[in-house]
Amino acid sequence: MRDAFHDELNALNDRLVEMTSLVRSAISRATTALLDADLQLAESVISQDAEVNRLYAEIETSIFELMATQQPVAVDLRVAITALRMGGDLERMGDLAEHVAKIARMRHPDSAIPPEVRDTILEMGQIAERLVTKTGSCIANHDVELAKELDDDDDAMDRLHRRLFRVLLSKDWAHGIEPAIDITLTGRYYERYADHAVRVARDVVYLVTGSRPESNSAS
Amino acid sequence: MRDAFHDELNALNDRLVEMTSLVRSAISRATTALLDADLQLAESVISQDAEVNRLYAEIETSIFELMATQQPVAVDLRVAITALRMGGDLERMGDLAEHVAKIARMRHPDSAIPPEVRDTILEMGQIAERLVTKTGSCIANHDVELAKELDDDDDAMDRLHRRLFRVLLSKDWAHGIEPAIDITLTGRYYERYADHAVRVARDVVYLVTGSRPESNSAS
Repeated sequence: MRDAFHDELNALNDRLVEMTSLVRSAISRATTALLDADLQLAESVISQDAEVNRLYAEIETSIFELMATQQPVAVDLRVAITALRMGGDLERMGDLAEHVAKIARMRHPDSAIPPEVRDTILEMGQIAERLVTKTGSCIANHDVELAKELDDDDDAMDRLHRRLFRVLLSKDWAHGIEPAIDITLTGRYYERYADHAVRVARDVVYLVTGSRPESNSAS
Repeated sequence: MRDAFHDELNALNDRLVEMTSLVRSAISRATTALLDADLQLAESVISQDAEVNRLYAEIETSIFELMATQQPVAVDLRVAITALRMGGDLERMGDLAEHVAKIARMRHPDSAIPPEVRDTILEMGQIAERLVTKTGSCIANHDVELAKELDDDDDAMDRLHRRLFRVLLSKDWAHGIEPAIDITLTGRYYERYADHAVRVARDVVYLVTGSRPESNSAS
């Protein structure tokens, strides 16, 4: 019985890794859709978020069944509850990628992103992808050392976020209010995406070590 | 043993209600701090968020202990896991109130809120308070009917959020980019605060009825 239980936990872990792949692909395509004003790509992100939600609902159901039938204790209980939390964070990352795609769709055929902030948004997208890729590896391999790296990537994201505001507030900004609103929201979505990736990686540390790493970032 | 368990669950419920009081007070003071450029009030919201976080950590610890020692099944298991989720949402609402207060602090001694959007922000603050007050009653009384009312308040919040953008994008907007950024973020914080209040109320419905109400709002 206990072995079947651990097989189930491993299967859950695989599905969490699968969620990281889906939300990595979502933020990657959302960034491209935003930068290239690619409506079709934006639509694909928006429609495929349902897949992320479905996977999360499956994970939630599996965990409830596991807990009801196997009544795990100690480490096993911690794993089950933490998986639930990780799934919730990953589901939210899917939403945030969808929000980015919706900004691309709203401004199509125009681009929401003026040339001055193109590079910054591109970098934010790349860091978001790097973060979630590492989060996926952390989950797959229970890699605590890798989890610690995510704080640095998150700091890089925060720096880019501040750079975005500097550009918006510079005297040279010539694009008016609407793009400023879009970019403010977009920056917030990438920043929150990164925060959730870091939370998931911290949960891996908690799973492996039994204690939570100190938080170095407010949100 | 089972009675002690239910006493513990009731105590947990009381602490969740206490969290709703704290985050209600936080958003109330944050709104006033923002509208009146009141630095001292803003600081009080920022420093007292630690209290919300402490309460959530206590709830989390209690639930883990409960689950480890009592191994709840069926309804009791659902209550325990859902309480964890509700606590997480309430903790986040505290963060969002803190974010609003930080905008007030950042612009002090100026006000971040120009006259044109003052009423809208005031109303958003009032709806946020109303939502969380109802959420508290839902938790306290396991009131499913009241939970359904929250969707209407959330719709009202969304309408105010759209009104905010209309003002920012009107030809008459004379305050430039910086206030537009502040207001965009502020609007997002209130909207997310409302979303989390609705999620908590939906969790009450789930607890009482065993099934989730249909979602009518994306986030």
